[in-house]
Formats: sequence, C-alpha cells, structure tokens
Amino acid sequence: MSERIHATYWLETPLAPQRAAEIIAGEQSSGTFLALANETDALKARSGARIERLEMLDVVGAPSLPGRYADQARFSRCLLELSWSVDNMGVSLPNVLATVAGNLFELQGVSGLRVLELRLPRVFAETYPGPAFGIAGTRRLAGVPQGPLIGTIIKPSVGLDAAQTAQEVRQLIDGGIDFIKDDELQADGPHCPFDERVRAVMREVEAGADRLGRRAMVAFNLTGELDEMKRRHDLVQSLGGTCVMVSLNSVGLVGLRELRRHSALPIHAHRNGWGYLSRHPALGWDYRAWHKLWRLAGADHLHVNGLSNKFSERDETVAEAARAVLEPLWPETPMPVMPVFSSGQTGLVAAATYAVTRSQDLIFAAGGGIFGHPDGVAAGVTALRQAWDAAVQGVPISVHAETRPALQRALGFW
Amino acid sequence: MSERIHATYWLETPLAPQRAAEIIAGEQSSGTFLALANETDALKARSGARIERLEMLDVVGAPSLPGRYADQARFSRCLLELSWSVDNMGVSLPNVLATVAGNLFELQGVSGLRVLELRLPRVFAETYPGPAFGIAGTRRLAGVPQGPLIGTIIKPSVGLDAAQTAQEVRQLIDGGIDFIKDDELQADGPHCPFDERVRAVMREVEAGADRLGRRAMVAFNLTGELDEMKRRHDLVQSLGGTCVMVSLNSVGLVGLRELRRHSALPIHAHRNGWGYLSRHPALGWDYRAWHKLWRLAGADHLHVNGLSNKFSERDETVAEAARAVLEPLWPETPMPVMPVFSSGQTGLVAAATYAVTRSQDLIFAAGGGIFGHPDGVAAGVTALRQAWDAAVQGVPISVHAETRPALQRALGFW
Repeated sequence: MSERIHATYWLETPLAPQRAAEIIAGEQSSGTFLALANETDALKARSGARIERLEMLDVVGAPSLPGRYADQARFSRCLLELSWSVDNMGVSLPNVLATVAGNLFELQGVSGLRVLELRLPRVFAETYPGPAFGIAGTRRLAGVPQGPLIGTIIKPSVGLDAAQTAQEVRQLIDGGIDFIKDDELQADGPHCPFDERVRAVMREVEAGADRLGRRAMVAFNLTGELDEMKRRHDLVQSLGGTCVMVSLNSVGLVGLRELRRHSALPIHAHRNGWGYLSRHPALGWDYRAWHKLWRLAGADHLHVNGLSNKFSERDETVAEAARAVLEPLWPETPMPVMPVFSSGQTGLVAAATYAVTRSQDLIFAAGGGIFGHPDGVAAGVTALRQAWDAAVQGVPISVHAETRPALQRALGFW
Repeated sequence: MSERIHATYWLETPLAPQRAAEIIAGEQSSGTFLALANETDALKARSGARIERLEMLDVVGAPSLPGRYADQARFSRCLLELSWSVDNMGVSLPNVLATVAGNLFELQGVSGLRVLELRLPRVFAETYPGPAFGIAGTRRLAGVPQGPLIGTIIKPSVGLDAAQTAQEVRQLIDGGIDFIKDDELQADGPHCPFDERVRAVMREVEAGADRLGRRAMVAFNLTGELDEMKRRHDLVQSLGGTCVMVSLNSVGLVGLRELRRHSALPIHAHRNGWGYLSRHPALGWDYRAWHKLWRLAGADHLHVNGLSNKFSERDETVAEAARAVLEPLWPETPMPVMPVFSSGQTGLVAAATYAVTRSQDLIFAAGGGIFGHPDGVAAGVTALRQAWDAAVQGVPISVHAETRPALQRALGFW
C-alpha cells in the first residue's frame, strides 16, 4: 500500500457536508465537474483522494466567506480529513502544496476552508533535509548551552547606516545579548548596503568576542534573488558570522530549499506576511500545518509571534504555533527547530511562555523590553534572563525580583 | 529624489484612519512601537513610508476580521496609498514583498487590509526580465498568429498514465486544439512520470505536426525543486516542446525567477492557491497588485479564472484581473503577457470575455466545453472558435450559429 499524505481542514459549506467533502476530494485528485469515461474505478482507487474523517461541528445561518450560495440559510461546519497517495505527486513539497492547498478555497461549495494540519509520510524525511543546525547547532554557534537565547532586533527597522547599525550591535553585545537580527525591512539598500553592514557588524562581533569570550549570533537578512542570497551568505560566513535570515513568503519554497542546499549557517526563517495567510479564521492556514513545509525545506528558527503580542493574534494561537514548532516531525526524525518569540515581549510573559513550551529551546526576542530598562541594555538583558530563571524555577517573578535589582527595576517599566 | 514604490490598500480600522495610516507606515518603515532616540528627523525623511492618499469610504459597526478591539463600535474603511523610497530595500521583488505585505495584516489597529494596487518605479524593469516570450513569442511557437488560443486541460487531473495522456493529446490535436496543459495536480508521480509523459506526448505532438502542419503547444507541469525544474525543462526543450508550466505559490518568487533565468520556453504560470490569498474581501490581495510580481519575475501566461466560472469568484473580479494582465506594466516597457481563462468556460462566455479584454491575445481553455460536444472534440474546438469569431464580429452567437453546424450543435449542450 502506498504511503499517504493527510490534510485536515476546517470546512464550512452550504452543501451537505458529505457532498462538499466529495467535491473537494474530487477536485484535488482525479475528479472533475463532468463525469469522464476514462476516470475508471481502478484509476479512482489508485488516485482519488480519500475522505478519512468528516466530523460535524455546528451549523450557522450565514457564510463566513462571501460567495454565490443562492438562498441557502444553513452553513455546516465540520472537520474534514483527506488523504492522497504520495504517488499522485511524488515526494515533492511544491506539489504537495498544490494538492492540499490548490484550487479549493474558491470552490462554490466552500464558504470557509482552513488547513489545520498536514501529515506527511516519512519518505519526505529521506528527500528533504530539514534544519541543518536546529537547536543543538544554534546553541553551539551562539555559545548558549542552556536557557533561552535572549535576542533583539535592530531598530529603527530601516534607515540606520552600517556604522550606526554596528554601534547598536556593540551596545547590545556589551549588554550580554545572545542573538541579534536585522529587521525584515532591512535588506540591501544604498543607505545600508548588505556587505558594508555585515563588515561593520562583524567587526563588533569579533571585538565583542575578544572582550567577552563569546560570539553573539547575528542573523543577517539576506532575502533576495538566489544568486544574491548565496553571495551574501558567503560573505557572512567568510567573516565568521553564524546565522542568516530569510523572509519565507518572499523567496518561496524553492528559495528556502536552495538556500538550505547552499548554506553553512543556521537559517533564521521570518514569516512576515503570515497575516494575509491566516488572519481570517475561516480561510487560509494554521501555523501547525504551514510551518512544516518550511521546516522540512530547511528552516532552523521559525517565528511564532509572542504571548501578549502587539499584534491581533490571540495567545492561544501563538501557543499552538509554538507547541507545533517544538513537536518532533516524526519520532525517528524529529527535525528539531527553535521557535522565535517576538513582538512586544518582556519578562512578564516568560512564565506564561514557559508554561506553553515546557522548554527553553527557543529564541526570546525583545526590543523595548531591553532598551527601555532605566539602567541600560545590560540590565535589560539581565532582567530578561532573571525573569526566565524565575519562570523555569516556578518562582513568582516579584519574589525572584526581591534580591535581583535588574529584575526589580525592570518590573517598573515592563 | 529617489524613486518610490507605491502600494494602495483597502483599509478598515477601529482607529482614526489617519492614526492607523501612520501606524502602518511606521511599522513598515523606520517606526516602531516605542519612540527611539536614533530615529532622527533626517532618518525619517529618508526612510519613512509616506502617506500619499487617505480617502474615506464608509464606516461600519462591526469589524471584518476578528481582533482585540475592546468596545469599539466604529470601523472606518478607507483607501490608503503609501510610498517608500526604493532605497529602503533595493530593487528586489522579494524585499518589496516584505515591505508592502509584511507584518501589517495582523496589526491591532487593522480590522481589514487588502493590497489593491502596486506601482513600481521603472528601475525594476532594468533588473527584472519580465516574460521572455509574452504574446508574440507564444503566438509564434503555437503557430496561432491571431485569435485566442483555444486550449484545454488533460483530465482526469491525475491518474492517467503516460500512454493514456498521450492518447488524449492525440485526440485533441486531431481536433485542432492550439494549447494543452497538464493539470496542476499532475507532476512527477510513479504512475505518470514526467519524463515518460513528455516523451509520449511529444511523440503525438510531432506526429500531429506531420499530419496537420502545426505543432500544438503543450504546457508540461514541471513544478518542483529547482534542479528538477531545470532538468525537466531541458527534456521538454530537447524533444521540441514549446511550453512549461509552474505553480507560482508552490515555488515562490525565487523559484520563478530562477526558472525564467534558465528557461528557453514560455512559462505558463498557474495561480492555484489564489483562493487563500484573496477570497475574503477584507484580507489579502487583489490580482492587479499580486500578478505584477510574477510578471516581472518572468511569467508569460497568467491565470485569471474565467467569466461564469465554476468557482466563487465574481465576474467583475475576473474582469479586473484580466484587464490588469493585459495592461502594460509601463508605457515604455509593457512586458505583455497572456491571460489564461479557464474553469467551466464555453463559447457562451466568449462575447462577454471579449467585451472585457477587447483583445484576442489570450488563452481560452475549456474542458467540458470541448469534450461535451456531441460530434466530438474537433467540433468542440471549432464551435469555440466560431463563438469567438461571433464575439469579435459583434454578431449574436445564435445568429452566427445559423450557418455553422458545429456551433449550432454546441449551443444545445453549453
């Protein structure tokens, strides 16, 4: 029996759910709107998508997505799990994507459709590399054997020149930061050319390593065309850099796969644009499903937003994303990656974050949470570490702060 | 003065629109949630996004997208045009994407956001190639100097083996078809390996050329990893094939750009997955904006769905997409591409389609509209051509059919 790909959807439909499920399964495999003589029973058995599960949730009176529904007044919501033989498309993530998330969101019998989960057979682990560095490699290169990597983002996002960027990096390194990243808006413009920025920043990283005995990890945003990304990667590597960053939606699956093929450094994967893929609950993707494509293709760090974030995403959704990123892909081939928490993060959410992850294998990035500390960046970084210590030890943060001035002072502004 | 990138959004917000516009502009350029000392006025002037236009549309009582809005009861809808200096990100489509459609759809001050239009400075035409073949090259290779290319899709989508596929192709070629494409679900699975399929199909294309003096254009779906796509392209080319097809959302911008770099054949660009990017009117993308990225990166044919389609998309939206694809990108550098109409198309929509396009530089793909003809495929293809002739001549289809039996018979089943 061939191995199968499974996708689970949240489906809302004006049709009888079984009928809608059959249409979706047909449209995404051997069926079409007309019965065709050459779609034989043998062909259907071999290539038809299979309805594995159809579980009614509820019925609503209005559709989530506008469409042409005539006068229907009942829209059924259900969980639908479909499966396909991997032989339909071969062991290929781009073609899995066209199958599980192709022309089906716009079907007339669909008033809402969201990909909740994607399960791929283990043969994908033989073809796709997954992260080259993951958790262990990142910890080794960052010189952080345990605890979360405390990180931050260069701000202003864009507009600083290379020297100003390096100056900010120097301050952060002296403050004891583990991880620094470019903003995703910072690429290779003439005011802050990539090469110049990397050279200036890496001088500070080296100088910091000499002073402090530890080389901070800086994720340089190399997002661009393939030749540009390769060239930029090589420069970072040649200067002793330990991480590159890429915007997933900007380069696509082939872009990430090729970068992974070329890269000798961990790939920090930014999900900007995720909002247009996910913000309406009746459309698009859950991160649990979506992130797997990128993880298999080679991402080492995957953004999950953060608890109490400045965006509209609910904590529950962030928690689900974080748990999904920390889950093994397969028991035998876990492909471990690091979730990246960011967006308005402070030590106040450390305990809640740890309650979700039960792991410190993560990057915890704060901006204002560090820079806002009245005693400066070093105190800000220290306070974040202390907040995480408290979280891991299960000590209330205010108690932990009693004997720790940096944390005590941080509580006043977080 | 530096050249600027312009994006126009449909915005819905619980905030005062001017405030929301400022937040979006700030978030996507030099601003952040905290006022930073190093975001100087000079830096802002150079790198800040500019609000070019803010035009109130209306006010509604409930948000289009769920979020954390406290007790707001007013949600303002407006048109917002922002511009950025191209120096912020460099002449780079992946970085344009991260700028105009990055972390902004999920902002708390956003209850709806959709990219309507994207205008890029002409410097992009110097860096990006656009289509290598476009309209003229496609017509030349397909041997169709005028009129729409009448096309179809191999069905069942997936499940036929190479020999069965070739048999279907033979029938279509004998029926006088101009253009045939793989379904986007058909890739390189073991039941219908790409190489075997291409060899079998190309034998029929060659045989058809010998019989009929014209070589039908077949778009082979080579979607996959970059090395696979290159290898598949080379095979198609070596066997005299004249087109390759790729799923844009599957391979991403870097995938298309690299394929364009390598390809000696027109690239038929499939937009499957477009539904998750567009189906909710308050989220995501209008095709007018989105398609430009792919057109610049090298697509020759771009899918636009079809009028009276089997999906949920309204005719008005399809028409806008088609017009956008037919519009020059810049007057001096039009980068002409062919729109592809498909999905439940018959001759009955030819007149309405022509009324939209005022052009026959398009691919008109029908499945049932051809195969369903009681007198067979040749009659089906003929009837479609006759329907288009009537449309272009402005003759009612029923009048045109009076002296044309193929069309007459088609009217009975369309």
